[in-house]
Amino acid sequence: MPKAVQSDIDIAQKAKMHHIRDIAAKLGLGDDQLEPYGKYKAKLPLALAEKDQCKYGKLILVSAITPTPAGEGKTTVSIGLNDGLNRIGKKSMVVLREPSLGPVFGIKGGATGGGYSQLLPMEDINLHFTGDFAAIEKANNLLAALIDNNLQSKNRSLNLDGRTVAWKRVMDMNDRSLRRLVCGLGGLAHGVPRETGFDITAASEIMAILCLADDLPDLKRRLGDIFLGFTFAREPIHARDLNAQGAMAALLKEAVKPNLIQSLEGNPAIMHGGPFANIAQGTNTVIATRTGLCLADYVVTEAGFGFDLGGEKFLDIKCQSAGFDPCAVVLVATVRALKYHGGVELAHLPVPNAKALSRGLENLTKQIENVRLFHLTPIVAINRFATDTDEEHQVILDHCQFMGVQAAVMEAWEKGGEGAEELAELVAATADQCTAHYKPLYDWNQSVREKIEIIATRVYGAASVEYAPGALKDLEKVKQLGLEGLPVCIAKTQSSLSDQPGLRGRPRDFVATVREVEIASGAGFLVPITGNMMRMPGLPEVPSAEKIDIDEKGVISGLF
Amino acid sequence: MPKAVQSDIDIAQKAKMHHIRDIAAKLGLGDDQLEPYGKYKAKLPLALAEKDQCKYGKLILVSAITPTPAGEGKTTVSIGLNDGLNRIGKKSMVVLREPSLGPVFGIKGGATGGGYSQLLPMEDINLHFTGDFAAIEKANNLLAALIDNNLQSKNRSLNLDGRTVAWKRVMDMNDRSLRRLVCGLGGLAHGVPRETGFDITAASEIMAILCLADDLPDLKRRLGDIFLGFTFAREPIHARDLNAQGAMAALLKEAVKPNLIQSLEGNPAIMHGGPFANIAQGTNTVIATRTGLCLADYVVTEAGFGFDLGGEKFLDIKCQSAGFDPCAVVLVATVRALKYHGGVELAHLPVPNAKALSRGLENLTKQIENVRLFHLTPIVAINRFATDTDEEHQVILDHCQFMGVQAAVMEAWEKGGEGAEELAELVAATADQCTAHYKPLYDWNQSVREKIEIIATRVYGAASVEYAPGALKDLEKVKQLGLEGLPVCIAKTQSSLSDQPGLRGRPRDFVATVREVEIASGAGFLVPITGNMMRMPGLPEVPSAEKIDIDEKGVISGLF
Repeated sequence: MPKAVQSDIDIAQKAKMHHIRDIAAKLGLGDDQLEPYGKYKAKLPLALAEKDQCKYGKLILVSAITPTPAGEGKTTVSIGLNDGLNRIGKKSMVVLREPSLGPVFGIKGGATGGGYSQLLPMEDINLHFTGDFAAIEKANNLLAALIDNNLQSKNRSLNLDGRTVAWKRVMDMNDRSLRRLVCGLGGLAHGVPRETGFDITAASEIMAILCLADDLPDLKRRLGDIFLGFTFAREPIHARDLNAQGAMAALLKEAVKPNLIQSLEGNPAIMHGGPFANIAQGTNTVIATRTGLCLADYVVTEAGFGFDLGGEKFLDIKCQSAGFDPCAVVLVATVRALKYHGGVELAHLPVPNAKALSRGLENLTKQIENVRLFHLTPIVAINRFATDTDEEHQVILDHCQFMGVQAAVMEAWEKGGEGAEELAELVAATADQCTAHYKPLYDWNQSVREKIEIIATRVYGAASVEYAPGALKDLEKVKQLGLEGLPVCIAKTQSSLSDQPGLRGRPRDFVATVREVEIASGAGFLVPITGNMMRMPGLPEVPSAEKIDIDEKGVISGLF
Repeated sequence: MPKAVQSDIDIAQKAKMHHIRDIAAKLGLGDDQLEPYGKYKAKLPLALAEKDQCKYGKLILVSAITPTPAGEGKTTVSIGLNDGLNRIGKKSMVVLREPSLGPVFGIKGGATGGGYSQLLPMEDINLHFTGDFAAIEKANNLLAALIDNNLQSKNRSLNLDGRTVAWKRVMDMNDRSLRRLVCGLGGLAHGVPRETGFDITAASEIMAILCLADDLPDLKRRLGDIFLGFTFAREPIHARDLNAQGAMAALLKEAVKPNLIQSLEGNPAIMHGGPFANIAQGTNTVIATRTGLCLADYVVTEAGFGFDLGGEKFLDIKCQSAGFDPCAVVLVATVRALKYHGGVELAHLPVPNAKALSRGLENLTKQIENVRLFHLTPIVAINRFATDTDEEHQVILDHCQFMGVQAAVMEAWEKGGEGAEELAELVAATADQCTAHYKPLYDWNQSVREKIEIIATRVYGAASVEYAPGALKDLEKVKQLGLEGLPVCIAKTQSSLSDQPGLRGRPRDFVATVREVEIASGAGFLVPITGNMMRMPGLPEVPSAEKIDIDEKGVISGLF
């Protein structure tokens, strides 16, 4: 495999890109419908996503088993599957999330796929892209500045009790030192001292709002609905009370438009929005998905980390909110992750170990069951790694056959769309046969505790749910604010089906603990937080940033 | 004047813009040399600014008398002058700074000119533009995250003494609550607690570096040279010790390229870089100015606030560093600012008051003298306001004649380039006659105190300079680091020729006080700080943000 030894960025930089005009032309879009950002990126107009103005294509969700810390290549599979669908003659698009700079400078790297299954221009997408994250950050932080300015205000004070303000500032950076801080120090002229902190931008409620908004008016309404805290008289204060929503929406005027790019094989792709599925709803924007559904016959989209996190939220929140009806779910599985679930340590994953693999299959089993809870058809994609053996693949294929699930080994990383043709055929056939509607797991009108418990017991496999005293208080607050009808977006570790990162495979008989319940009334969901989820990551001992460089010609190295 | 009652944004939104391709064509640039950002903005390639690769046009600096808090319309004059030069048949460009979001949401508004002398697209330029500020912010904050990560590091610690770290984070926002804070709270896993804060992005040393860099390699070298603090053994630590410069430069790969836009009259303009001249060197980038000089016969550029701040720095730092040789200096004066210097309060400025006006002329006199200190020819542009009387204009014109200075009333705000033709004729004639080189005020090799004292006594008019104990300590540090050969970029109030905001007119016999001396070894200057300069503004009681809105069609209102 001489091709495979090249790094992702080498492959990306050697690729001959098409002008974004030509990519748009494949979708029947003219030059006047594009707002180019350089020669290879463009914003698409909002008009393409006007509700009920087009016939939707088939929506295909790519999710995964519970991943190892390195990730199982969901994005690579999504891009490859789309290239594969195009190769077998389907008009297909892939619609994905944007990368966050935190992982780019930290450990995990970018989010443009890998090997011969990548989106381009790789460097641009991983560094600022079209400025969407920066705009979201600014809108979030404008609201924070307006809050602190009101606390300081003599004549226009809303009597907001600063101790009740949960709104934090955000930065698209892994910066643990900003998690908890005391601001407003220095005396009378420098604000009101209070404890607050920064989250990473992907965790901002503004990101969630952008991802769930139907259009500009809906975006502005949601921005105004953001709950900020209580007055000293315990009256709720929202962003609209600060007249913040107009300026915030103006800051988002370009960020709300989907971004058109291309794959290595020259197929159109949309990348838009970038929340994390462990702490937010985790998928690209409703506007982007709808744009894709209006432009193509098949739309491949992704929700991670595992199906228990991203898949559940995609189906119970995003699809419900937007009126999408997905037709098939691809579950990405890897030999190494299954061995990991079977008890093998990270360093030993490349070594063949059929026994551990068999043990680890219980995680795949549970995620297949989870897909079926929604009355959807799972298809397993085995994302091939160079260290895999054919015997190991056969163990997984046999298990899928036993469970009545179609499965294919996919080699898009090494071979691009050609390596995903078998999977593409399976997926297209499943999507074409799909007639019934999928069934969400719960009714938004159920009680908050019922909603949490349905997800925890049926999807995560918990025996029961416990609530910390703070969480019970939060539930009272939710009731007081009349927000019990919102869906729940549970924050949970991505490393386990349970809320305990150390529990691999298929944990049973565990008690899920809800520590607190955050209110995201603008986004339109509640966030029950389990375990020790952090919304601002830290950098590792050796940050990837140290290896990133640019030469005198502007050529970048060290991104992956 | 029915035209004049329209707001700036109304005028801007009614304008018919040309495609940026067509604007570029006026400069002889082809489509392949542009990186479009939408239809009306584009990045220009760095190759256009390669040193010594072209014949330079004539460089014209627009500066001003000491302004009132509302500003005297320097940007409006610069844009109008350029439109005027184009009207009289000259191949001219205007090269300006980018707006900061702080003033946009605060009080002062954007930075695209006003009336019929504006740059377009006004909303885009004032909101994110092409993402340059966001990239600078990110590069600045990546360095901060790497510093705090190193403080937290077990195995790769540089033994940096966190108490010596002056590097702050930045945000493009007026947010006083972030001026002083304690970060790293929460325990072992959440960083090392220390006192720090945020500056506004325009005040970042990264902004200064971007503005002074010759090219990409020079940018990277300067980034690596940023001084961060001392180890516990009192060894200096620089950004290169954290291997930060490569990733920072990669983050700036697009921000380093100049932005091409257009004026209301369809003339090409470049806008790039955005430092404040009260706390940084205050002018657009060297790369942008050089690009302009290579593309046009005349380049109009701006340095504010007053000539004492922006003009001095432009000539002693930027032109020296880049090898530019300006040919003329336009001093913008307004009737209202001169009356303000004559003792009239802000609310009464519209009322005719010849006596106060005459008294206030001493500020203009001093700024004219200041221009002549550099062996340059001043031209006075009287920026006409609707409340001005002809008699008031005549008082100023007579004074200029007395001083041997050419002057013109300019009406670009009301009439566009047509209102600036007389000024354009004067400026073109002066620039065409310019043969001698300008003379900087000091030699970089003089001692730091000599350099400070030359500027303070000769330009500001101080009787002497005093140093606070902290400043003397800082000067020791400068010596220890071997940085005495750097030029000085004095931070001083923009509201007075002196370092005391309340002193109007032409203050004499005052003592300028240097409170501290900051080191910007990457930018390549020292920052003696006088008075109470703050690098992070606050929002007013009624922030402009409250009036900014966007409608369902994406049309923005409330920007100015």
